[in-house]
Amino acid sequence: MFFRQNQLQYHAKPDRPDPVYAKQLQEVLGGQWGEISVMMTYLFQGWNCRGPAKYRDMIMDIGTEEIGHVEMLATMIAQLLEASPVEAREEAAKDSVIGAAMGGARIEDAIVAGMNPQHVIVTGSGAAPTDSVGYPWNARYTIASGNMLADFRFNVTAESQGRLQVSRLYQLTEDKGVRDMLSFLLARDTMHQNQWLAAIKELEADGLEMTPCPSNFPQKLELTDVSYQYLDFSEGSESKQGGWAKGSSVDGKGKIKYVAEPPAMGEVPELGPVDPRLQGTPKKPHKAAA
Amino acid sequence: MFFRQNQLQYHAKPDRPDPVYAKQLQEVLGGQWGEISVMMTYLFQGWNCRGPAKYRDMIMDIGTEEIGHVEMLATMIAQLLEASPVEAREEAAKDSVIGAAMGGARIEDAIVAGMNPQHVIVTGSGAAPTDSVGYPWNARYTIASGNMLADFRFNVTAESQGRLQVSRLYQLTEDKGVRDMLSFLLARDTMHQNQWLAAIKELEADGLEMTPCPSNFPQKLELTDVSYQYLDFSEGSESKQGGWAKGSSVDGKGKIKYVAEPPAMGEVPELGPVDPRLQGTPKKPHKAAA
Amino acid sequence: MFFRQNQLQYHAKPDRPDPVYAKQLQEVLGGQWGEISVMMTYLFQGWNCRGPAKYRDMIMDIGTEEIGHVEMLATMIAQLLEASPVEAREEAAKDSVIGAAMGGARIEDAIVAGMNPQHVIVTGSGAAPTDSVGYPWNARYTIASGNMLADFRFNVTAESQGRLQVSRLYQLTEDKGVRDMLSFLLARDTMHQNQWLAAIKELEADGLEMTPCPSNFPQKLELTDVSYQYLDFSEGSESKQGGWAKGSSVDGKGKIKYVAEPPAMGEVPELGPVDPRLQGTPKKPHKAAA
Amino acid sequence: MFFRQNQLQYHAKPDRPDPVYAKQLQEVLGGQWGEISVMMTYLFQGWNCRGPAKYRDMIMDIGTEEIGHVEMLATMIAQLLEASPVEAREEAAKDSVIGAAMGGARIEDAIVAGMNPQHVIVTGSGAAPTDSVGYPWNARYTIASGNMLADFRFNVTAESQGRLQVSRLYQLTEDKGVRDMLSFLLARDTMHQNQWLAAIKELEADGLEMTPCPSNFPQKLELTDVSYQYLDFSEGSESKQGGWAKGSSVDGKGKIKYVAEPPAMGEVPELGPVDPRLQGTPKKPHKAAA
Amino acid sequence: MFFRQNQLQYHAKPDRPDPVYAKQLQEVLGGQWGEISVMMTYLFQGWNCRGPAKYRDMIMDIGTEEIGHVEMLATMIAQLLEASPVEAREEAAKDSVIGAAMGGARIEDAIVAGMNPQHVIVTGSGAAPTDSVGYPWNARYTIASGNMLADFRFNVTAESQGRLQVSRLYQLTEDKGVRDMLSFLLARDTMHQNQWLAAIKELEADGLEMTPCPSNFPQKLELTDVSYQYLDFSEGSESKQGGWAKGSSVDGKGKIKYVAEPPAMGEVPELGPVDPRLQGTPKKPHKAAA
Amino acid sequence: MFFRQNQLQYHAKPDRPDPVYAKQLQEVLGGQWGEISVMMTYLFQGWNCRGPAKYRDMIMDIGTEEIGHVEMLATMIAQLLEASPVEAREEAAKDSVIGAAMGGARIEDAIVAGMNPQHVIVTGSGAAPTDSVGYPWNARYTIASGNMLADFRFNVTAESQGRLQVSRLYQLTEDKGVRDMLSFLLARDTMHQNQWLAAIKELEADGLEMTPCPSNFPQKLELTDVSYQYLDFSEGSESKQGGWAKGSSVDGKGKIKYVAEPPAMGEVPELGPVDPRLQGTPKKPHKAAA
Repeated sequence: MFFRQNQLQYHAKPDRPDPVYAKQLQEVLGGQWGEISVMMTYLFQGWNCRGPAKYRDMIMDIGTEEIGHVEMLATMIAQLLEASPVEAREEAAKDSVIGAAMGGARIEDAIVAGMNPQHVIVTGSGAAPTDSVGYPWNARYTIASGNMLADFRFNVTAESQGRLQVSRLYQLTEDKGVRDMLSFLLARDTMHQNQWLAAIKELEADGLEMTPCPSNFPQKLELTDVSYQYLDFSEGSESKQGGWAKGSSVDGKGKIKYVAEPPAMGEVPELGPVDPRLQGTPKKPHKAAA
Repeated sequence: MFFRQNQLQYHAKPDRPDPVYAKQLQEVLGGQWGEISVMMTYLFQGWNCRGPAKYRDMIMDIGTEEIGHVEMLATMIAQLLEASPVEAREEAAKDSVIGAAMGGARIEDAIVAGMNPQHVIVTGSGAAPTDSVGYPWNARYTIASGNMLADFRFNVTAESQGRLQVSRLYQLTEDKGVRDMLSFLLARDTMHQNQWLAAIKELEADGLEMTPCPSNFPQKLELTDVSYQYLDFSEGSESKQGGWAKGSSVDGKGKIKYVAEPPAMGEVPELGPVDPRLQGTPKKPHKAAA
Repeated sequence: MFFRQNQLQYHAKPDRPDPVYAKQLQEVLGGQWGEISVMMTYLFQGWNCRGPAKYRDMIMDIGTEEIGHVEMLATMIAQLLEASPVEAREEAAKDSVIGAAMGGARIEDAIVAGMNPQHVIVTGSGAAPTDSVGYPWNARYTIASGNMLADFRFNVTAESQGRLQVSRLYQLTEDKGVRDMLSFLLARDTMHQNQWLAAIKELEADGLEMTPCPSNFPQKLELTDVSYQYLDFSEGSESKQGGWAKGSSVDGKGKIKYVAEPPAMGEVPELGPVDPRLQGTPKKPHKAAA
Repeated sequence: MFFRQNQLQYHAKPDRPDPVYAKQLQEVLGGQWGEISVMMTYLFQGWNCRGPAKYRDMIMDIGTEEIGHVEMLATMIAQLLEASPVEAREEAAKDSVIGAAMGGARIEDAIVAGMNPQHVIVTGSGAAPTDSVGYPWNARYTIASGNMLADFRFNVTAESQGRLQVSRLYQLTEDKGVRDMLSFLLARDTMHQNQWLAAIKELEADGLEMTPCPSNFPQKLELTDVSYQYLDFSEGSESKQGGWAKGSSVDGKGKIKYVAEPPAMGEVPELGPVDPRLQGTPKKPHKAAA
Repeated sequence: MFFRQNQLQYHAKPDRPDPVYAKQLQEVLGGQWGEISVMMTYLFQGWNCRGPAKYRDMIMDIGTEEIGHVEMLATMIAQLLEASPVEAREEAAKDSVIGAAMGGARIEDAIVAGMNPQHVIVTGSGAAPTDSVGYPWNARYTIASGNMLADFRFNVTAESQGRLQVSRLYQLTEDKGVRDMLSFLLARDTMHQNQWLAAIKELEADGLEMTPCPSNFPQKLELTDVSYQYLDFSEGSESKQGGWAKGSSVDGKGKIKYVAEPPAMGEVPELGPVDPRLQGTPKKPHKAAA
Repeated sequence: MFFRQNQLQYHAKPDRPDPVYAKQLQEVLGGQWGEISVMMTYLFQGWNCRGPAKYRDMIMDIGTEEIGHVEMLATMIAQLLEASPVEAREEAAKDSVIGAAMGGARIEDAIVAGMNPQHVIVTGSGAAPTDSVGYPWNARYTIASGNMLADFRFNVTAESQGRLQVSRLYQLTEDKGVRDMLSFLLARDTMHQNQWLAAIKELEADGLEMTPCPSNFPQKLELTDVSYQYLDFSEGSESKQGGWAKGSSVDGKGKIKYVAEPPAMGEVPELGPVDPRLQGTPKKPHKAAA
């Protein structure tokens, strides 16, 4: 069960409206690697967790924190969209391309041309659970597999892609208020990368999971002949120089063998004949159907 | 530029048709973590790669291999769908629930009720680029961010989730031919997990990337006060026991501080007034609009 | 900012596993009218709210409650999926079609054939943010328009469609634990329908919004000739009997006029010529392009 | 069965082309709340209707009218896209930001940069069944539940959100021809809001449906203890002042009770152990799998 | 502007309910190649048509007819879903697998397990604008490009894929009422294939379009060296035997040349360096960012 | 099994960066009719092919070639995005609207406002598998039905729509390097239109398929009365002049009959009563549910 406190987790107040930046900022709210993705991923991983309590509790801690990050971004975007036409014209004229483009022009054109039009027509100056091109957030951005190593690896990825996107957005604005909020999100992403990496280490230390993931599946059932072969399917041999193509495998269970010209081990596929009742094209004409 | 060889990379021949299993197997062909996802992810990461040649070449090697995996799965599924109604009835009657359900029943019902209906109506006994519930593959399953650490972390995840799903599918069938193919895919996933983990190590050894990712963004620009704080937003203190809540951070750059009752650091948000031209609901009635 | 308490808002414990029902129950978790939809709708309406504080606070109250409903449903579904194959076989044999179908059959077949296959392959016995056919939740199920009357009408709808679906699901199970949880959700939906209807009344009483919505747009700018005409475009005159086709309009601003054979008031459309640079098909052949 | 008349229901002719506005106007053609949504919603509600003939006939009347609205918008958009480069340059230079931006620039750049690129590349100056960000219309925007109260509430919402969006679009243009068409759509939305509100009243008067919806489900099966409780999950007590938190419920069946600190009524959830065959992470290490 | 007549274009009445078949039949209502797709495709092609009046009128004729086909299918599906549990049990027991599976089982299980669960929970025994796996219809199934040859080729395809699916569905049922309706749809698809093929011939006869499409683009601007080369990128030389690999091209403008081992004509791609402000991985470590 | 060669199939090198054009060019990479669509369509058609070897081999040849086209476009787009801000400003100022808009403006604004923001934030100057409005590629753009005539008709369409889009894109740029690459793609589309048209002819010559497709379904099972009737559902009789409305049908099997006022041949639909357990609205009030 959840409760909400009125204050935000951190400041989310821009120095001035900037509807074009509002469009861009949507990426880390409702995009593939945005805050809704981590919020929903962590909550479902927690609700589905059947492992030790310390992991479950940790997942719920961070999942709950992320609801607050979604809140901060939505609040920030709503304020970035508060462009009074008159002020917007004046500000824009000073320091941005929009201003340059706007001499004598209708202000509505300028605002809407650079914006996500749905920020006017659909939300009326509010944030939306979509990304920077207006594509709606969807649940296939998340995963809760029941296997914590597989999932924590996803979580490290999400915090990395997310921090990468925030760092790019940091450089797309000079608004001090926006940058202040982003500096907070960057810091939390740093913590969360560390948190999930620590959790992966702990899973191994606790004997619960290891590489290859899932470790509970008996490795002898795989075709071990090719478990540690590096297969080179692309012209060029630069890849041979990497640590992935020689020496011991990272999981400590094999020795990598580099195969320059991987042989085909399978047959030439031969599908069975067409079922005539499905009107597929057969190898030879069917007898007349009349 | 690409070429194709007629033989498959490995055997893909079931002992007998099984249309219900064909539906399930679609998950690792066209699902979120299926072979199309890794094929497309790696190809785009390679095509967009601006880093050292050994990485780019390696990415293209594995991307090209994955096209062959998609081929194997599509071929396998097409054969699993080759249920001649008569044979299907006989086989099914022996050892599966479908047989049990089929005494005296119309065979078409049995085949289609347990199947993905599109395997009959749309593909006419062929594989489709969709997952096990018939949802079409889409490109938001992939990422090619230009930052290799962020992307390789995704790749480790994909090989982990993929191997997990294959291991589950292994146990949902007893068909020796299918299991033979799956044992190959499991082994390659083992290799590929190792490969991406090795590549991550090498990125760090080469001084190109490290935690927190992206490492080229100056960490001093983040709000370092909260970069290494563990914030506990969920009742229960089990999470305090984990390595993520104490000691040095995994990146070696901070000391974790556990915060039992995280304070709100932000303001109570206060949005600006409604722009009357957008017909939002204001705080007080507008003067009469007539 | 949000906090989480360990206890659920209400009981969510089934008497026994039932993976087929788990698939069905997903509808009110991650479907068009499920709990994720109302949670996300209300949270965004609240975060974007520029109206009086009592409305905003009310929206946040209910938005926060809904996170807890998502939690209850996810927890319930995870437990419905806990079918140990052996127990499942025994239970099923007693009182459901799955049992009937399973004599001598492989248990894996039975479990998976009736289930959403992703409940095995993807989530490993966990809930997913998808609906009963496995379609992922997406943000186009929500609306936060900034106009409270438009949005509250949506909210009444969501609570009505949601309660309708829960009432259907109530009758698709006889599990007492499940029904207990559903009886709670039904009651809350009753409250929430009343809550949004009361809020609509209050908007009107406060002079903030009324019909036609949005009321801040000057009605004189619309083509008032047709504002209160009932136009009959479909054969049959039963529709003439309804209150919508005669008397005063509900908004009290017009008198309805029934038009049996609506005249076309517009022109026969005539598009301009093709821009030859776009290779559209023109009215007459272009001169030779060579 | 349907027939089509050549004239449009109302004028749909812009004074001049405006490709940027064409992009915006797509929202009310193919967006979540656009004319395709109401057309398809009403048609399916009518085709699925099992209630009294007067309702079904009314639903079909309006559903058929909406096909004509889709036609008007598509026709309008096609004409807005008829910008001859030369004329466009001249017009634009006079009164819009595009002109300001275009001195000495290539006209193709100006047209395409401000447009939806698919209006050039895909449709070649034609309308598309998509919204203002190019997202395709999809059927999850519709509902036909079989319960008329639930559905008519949706319909009131759709006419409200739709009229709101049209009113915003009205202010984003000064083209007299466009505004003329919008004034017609606004008026019809006024009628349709009244129409559905009247239908809701009539459903109640006919004894067919009432609040809580669905009314045919026995209310005694819900957990009546919480059917009329206002639960305050968010800090702040402003919500206590509203009509939703005190007095009689709108449905006349209960008295609202305000609960300032809602108690958790459920258990701390405890999921069962992992099924080892699904490779989830267990509470304790499994015995070695080798 | 459109009108509706009460009678259906053709009979749409099943002999008996069959909810599993209802699920399958959805494919040709709301699937990729279903009636909604052709209805929307033709209507938009007509509304966007800038070519001769005879084409535009023809497109509108067929587009309007297709609305009536959608109506027939929706009506049929609603009736197929009218399974009174008792009757369903009796019917099913006689001649289908559902009956076989249902001895002693709860009827609700049987109905829902074989059905699309949304046919119960969401539509309450009504049709939905979705396909046979429950995936919602979306507008990317349509095309209206402004070039009639490109579009009419699509239309021939749609009528072919559609007739193929109907023919498969014909064989999945023995219900005489359903087959009667399908025999009508099959016949109309025959007509419509002929209609579009005739229209393609006429476009060429009228000098408006020809192969290669679009014919208004000057062919001399293409790299004519490879315009008529057959390039063999896949092992095996069977493809050499086909008419596509020798002789004159179908458009009469070239002679086909078979190239057994297609040479690469391009460079080894070399992307430029990373923009450091985007945090991509560079070829060499950036100077320390601190 | 697939291999990759380092060189591209043809040149893919722009003269200079152009991020706005990069956005537009995405359409033919990841759009409905882009190269990913044909690549995936052909590969799946080949893998599912049960017809004569010459067809299968031909399909695989072209499917493999298309992977190389995807590669060329991705490479081109990555280079178009390599705008160093300084150079971009200088170039832009010379000859495009972006330059005009940029005097004194912040360069980041200019780059991002005209771009797809995901080209900065998500891919960091790389291509993405999406279309020109950022909508992700999805597998419902493809078809592999098992019936070659139906599928080859799709393929002709895809090569026509694709060539049409490339020809439009050709005119939206003056970059010689881009135009060089497009001239190659145009030529290959010319070949591929011819190739699929030749394959259709050959299918007929081989006696495998013909109109009406599918030809293996006995035509006598369709309602032959209406197989060759032209039905005019739209006002206006221009359509009567076309070859589709008179004379022999293209398939040579019928004589077209023009029907000016198509009669309804079906009944007025009458759905059965509501199942009370589904809470649909009935014709008359149910007895009190309490």
